Amino acid sequence: MTKISLITIGNELLKGTIINTNAARAGTMLRESGFHLGRVVTIADQAEDIQQTVEQEFGHSEVILMSGGLGPTQDDITKQTLKESFGGGGYVLHEPTLAHLRERYRKRGRALNELTEQQAMVPDVCEVVRNELGTAPGMLFRRGEKMLISMPGVPFEMLHMLQNEVIPLLQRERSPNAFLREVVRITGVPESEAAQRMEALEKEAPFPPEIEVAYLPRVDGLWLEIATQLPIEQKNIAAELASTTSDRVYRQFQKEAYTRTTKDLALIVQEAFMEKGLTLAVAESMTGGMVAAKLVSISGASRYFKGGVTAYFTEVKSKVLGVSPEIIEKYGVVSEAVAQSMAEGVRQLMGADVGLAITGRAEPAENLPAEAWLGYATAKKSMTKHIDFLYRRNVNIERASNILLLTGLANIRSDF
Amino acid sequence: MTKISLITIGNELLKGTIINTNAARAGTMLRESGFHLGRVVTIADQAEDIQQTVEQEFGHSEVILMSGGLGPTQDDITKQTLKESFGGGGYVLHEPTLAHLRERYRKRGRALNELTEQQAMVPDVCEVVRNELGTAPGMLFRRGEKMLISMPGVPFEMLHMLQNEVIPLLQRERSPNAFLREVVRITGVPESEAAQRMEALEKEAPFPPEIEVAYLPRVDGLWLEIATQLPIEQKNIAAELASTTSDRVYRQFQKEAYTRTTKDLALIVQEAFMEKGLTLAVAESMTGGMVAAKLVSISGASRYFKGGVTAYFTEVKSKVLGVSPEIIEKYGVVSEAVAQSMAEGVRQLMGADVGLAITGRAEPAENLPAEAWLGYATAKKSMTKHIDFLYRRNVNIERASNILLLTGLANIRSDF
Repeated sequence: MTKISLITIGNELLKGTIINTNAARAGTMLRESGFHLGRVVTIADQAEDIQQTVEQEFGHSEVILMSGGLGPTQDDITKQTLKESFGGGGYVLHEPTLAHLRERYRKRGRALNELTEQQAMVPDVCEVVRNELGTAPGMLFRRGEKMLISMPGVPFEMLHMLQNEVIPLLQRERSPNAFLREVVRITGVPESEAAQRMEALEKEAPFPPEIEVAYLPRVDGLWLEIATQLPIEQKNIAAELASTTSDRVYRQFQKEAYTRTTKDLALIVQEAFMEKGLTLAVAESMTGGMVAAKLVSISGASRYFKGGVTAYFTEVKSKVLGVSPEIIEKYGVVSEAVAQSMAEGVRQLMGADVGLAITGRAEPAENLPAEAWLGYATAKKSMTKHIDFLYRRNVNIERASNILLLTGLANIRSDF
Repeated sequence: MTKISLITIGNELLKGTIINTNAARAGTMLRESGFHLGRVVTIADQAEDIQQTVEQEFGHSEVILMSGGLGPTQDDITKQTLKESFGGGGYVLHEPTLAHLRERYRKRGRALNELTEQQAMVPDVCEVVRNELGTAPGMLFRRGEKMLISMPGVPFEMLHMLQNEVIPLLQRERSPNAFLREVVRITGVPESEAAQRMEALEKEAPFPPEIEVAYLPRVDGLWLEIATQLPIEQKNIAAELASTTSDRVYRQFQKEAYTRTTKDLALIVQEAFMEKGLTLAVAESMTGGMVAAKLVSISGASRYFKGGVTAYFTEVKSKVLGVSPEIIEKYGVVSEAVAQSMAEGVRQLMGADVGLAITGRAEPAENLPAEAWLGYATAKKSMTKHIDFLYRRNVNIERASNILLLTGLANIRSDF
């Protein structure tokens, strides 16, 4: 299998001012395209570091991908260092890049300045890789069978170039594997219990050795990932192995599985509501609006999500959502009765088919534990659910938001 | 200055299933403690990779920090590889670690199993570094003047160990610099304009060469960072240089600066409301609850934040917030009049001193552009603000949420 190193260049990455999301996204894209990222090295924007690291990584890998250190204000350190490392004699004008720059500036009604124009000058030993979304062109350098491809550091430029230019090029010149992945996403099962039940499954009959099973704990539950990479000629076998194993895992967790797709939870909720022709309203307290914000993060939410109320002061729960002050007095603001009343209250207030509600403490306060009550209400039914919290305030808020969405999803699936 | 490399071990990092936040946080912590992270290398959990990369990084750095690859289920590859790399003869029992493990399990009412107990066995050539929050101890290996410290990969364990054990150790054994940083956070100034005004400032009198000025574009505006690292004996000079430069930058952007602290924007808002003894209510449409969620992310929000309404369906704007259907009909749902009416409506509904509101389109729809109107209302005053959007749906939602908070902040500062 082709060995690939990624060198990410940038002082801000080392200072921690920027998180290296490019590396994670590149790892995912390469994997999904049948390649495997073997090493990532982050270095400063300095000629000596760049030169040494390139030599070093060629000792490990056949292909080096590089991101960052290009661009008009960076004194072309990367470009010059690569020219020298690959024995270039000078720079040449790359006409298509110049045309692209001119077009880009023309569209924005601006004149091309000299600094930007210089981006079309590239080392005479490289092949240019098109940067559709930016100004600094990508550059491909070869050394025997090995190659280095330099990309810009701006995430959307880099990822677009990787997906649309670099990966297709690698697929033409190297042999990618077939990559097959299935997921079974479950909720309400602790990781240790999931592992035990998985072991039980393996005792009945071991998973094929070509299959890699990963437990990925996420805020919306546990993702069980069943993946395999096999040579491209064995693509059908890989698909068969992945789907057979995934079916076995799914049967083991059928009760707790809520999807076998990788879709965003809010999108899954949206699709379920749209399919059933239902509308939704949400009443929040401890999650402060995060549940509503998650729903709205998906385009098209306005077709089923009527709105929400964040009732943070206790008086707002009564005044806006109609929760009776006696209930609050009697059971406390974090209680089953209040959650139930909030769900029904917001449902009626907004004229929705389904109401969801949460009341809780995101962190312990005045000797009371961090906990929450969730409520679900329709014209015909209401139910509640209790959760205990274990983590930091913001992790608890995030988890609670997801559990409320999962609760709504499970209920409308069984009720409608 | 001490050269430091960080080696992060983990297949999930290379697959992109996990983003390397440890590296960014480590970079920040080291910098703030007067050190400088020079290189980060991410590799797979394999003996050969670990062994080669350790040798390689000792060629670059005096100190190697390592994270990941420890833990009971990982077959101790890291531990064994390091033992061999540093010429260890075998393993020895580390009594304090065993006591720590026993205590930990006792507290949870569980028996210590053999697998976990083995974590107290460490190579006979290492010094143990305490892991207060987890089970796998840190290990310090020395080679002449150089050292390697291995830490667990779980973020909160690793970061706690780095902050409380490793950095103090480095500070004792190596000479950290004095690190001084000031920030001036501004809003409403495009980066290119900020750069021009900064250049104008430098033309009057150049910044001291010891000072590094960084432009950090964030969702809550532009952070102008003024930082310096000088030898510890020159700490006073460093502080003087940073504060003088920061004052000059602040004067240049006085009108647009909203804080000189690094505090979370929601905390700044909370402090301003608490200081003035005011309460707040928020009406959201396109941001879907994110503004309220941001406020609630800060402990103590219940002392001033009464609550919010997410009026996503147009009818909810009328029914719950009292926006007149005629206004919506006449001006459209994304309009100055509707924003104004929503802000006043939510203020009255919740009985708050201040109402904030936003109505907008997070992405272009039906030939209408992505834009938003913001509203601010008190008993005596109301104002509005228009914003145009340039980016993807979710970036626009995030930006709009922050601009609404900044608008509220600026107004209560001048009105109360």
